[in-house]
Amino acid sequence: MHAEVEWQGKMHFVGTGSNDTVVELDAPPAVGGEDRGMRPKELLLHSLAGCTGMDVIAILHKMRLEPTLFRVSVRAEMTEEHPKVFTAFHITYTVGAEIPDEKLEKAINLSQERYCGVTHMYRSFAKVSHEVVKV
Amino acid sequence: MHAEVEWQGKMHFVGTGSNDTVVELDAPPAVGGEDRGMRPKELLLHSLAGCTGMDVIAILHKMRLEPTLFRVSVRAEMTEEHPKVFTAFHITYTVGAEIPDEKLEKAINLSQERYCGVTHMYRSFAKVSHEVVKV
Repeated sequence: MHAEVEWQGKMHFVGTGSNDTVVELDAPPAVGGEDRGMRPKELLLHSLAGCTGMDVIAILHKMRLEPTLFRVSVRAEMTEEHPKVFTAFHITYTVGAEIPDEKLEKAINLSQERYCGVTHMYRSFAKVSHEVVKV
Repeated sequence: MHAEVEWQGKMHFVGTGSNDTVVELDAPPAVGGEDRGMRPKELLLHSLAGCTGMDVIAILHKMRLEPTLFRVSVRAEMTEEHPKVFTAFHITYTVGAEIPDEKLEKAINLSQERYCGVTHMYRSFAKVSHEVVKV
């Protein structure tokens, strides 16, 4: 896998990867940026949320289930000193109430235990926990 | 730190974080996606490139140096079996020829050894190497 970011001035970068889409990266004004994109470390949370989110959607799809609503949020704890690293990730799956609990639990557990490589990598340096909210 | 991705149908998600910008995530057609955004694991490469890229730009700025061109690319090796994880990251810094080698090397080493938390986290589960290309 390959990706690249190109500097645009100040702390702004534009990232490209395997297709035509781009990702904007920037820092907050406090460190010289203009908040014109994601902070690099934020992308670690999006990667985790997207990885397990796609797993769960794909597994539910195989069960012939499609949620009316599906969101994955990640809250992470970070150290204060350089190099600042994450020590814990907590994932919240917010899912339409029509998906049966046991099917949803099975899909999430398959992602967390078997399929989601991002979870697996992050467990090398941090705790990864999760909860489910039905709406 | 907090981030969230919301499902848009098929394998498409839109991610939000600490400011108004968004990141699009999607899978390739081979696994049911439409390539309308970054693959989740690709974002791990953008995060690494952006983290060390911002470090180097900030350190060069303190040295009163600004490159005419600055790009950071990352190539990663991944396992074949689930859960698929990265085993090695190779970073290439492409930098305008006007930046003196010893200043550039100092900035990159400060990022890789002291400041870049993303590099530090990834070293828990993979090798991280780098090279410099002057253009």
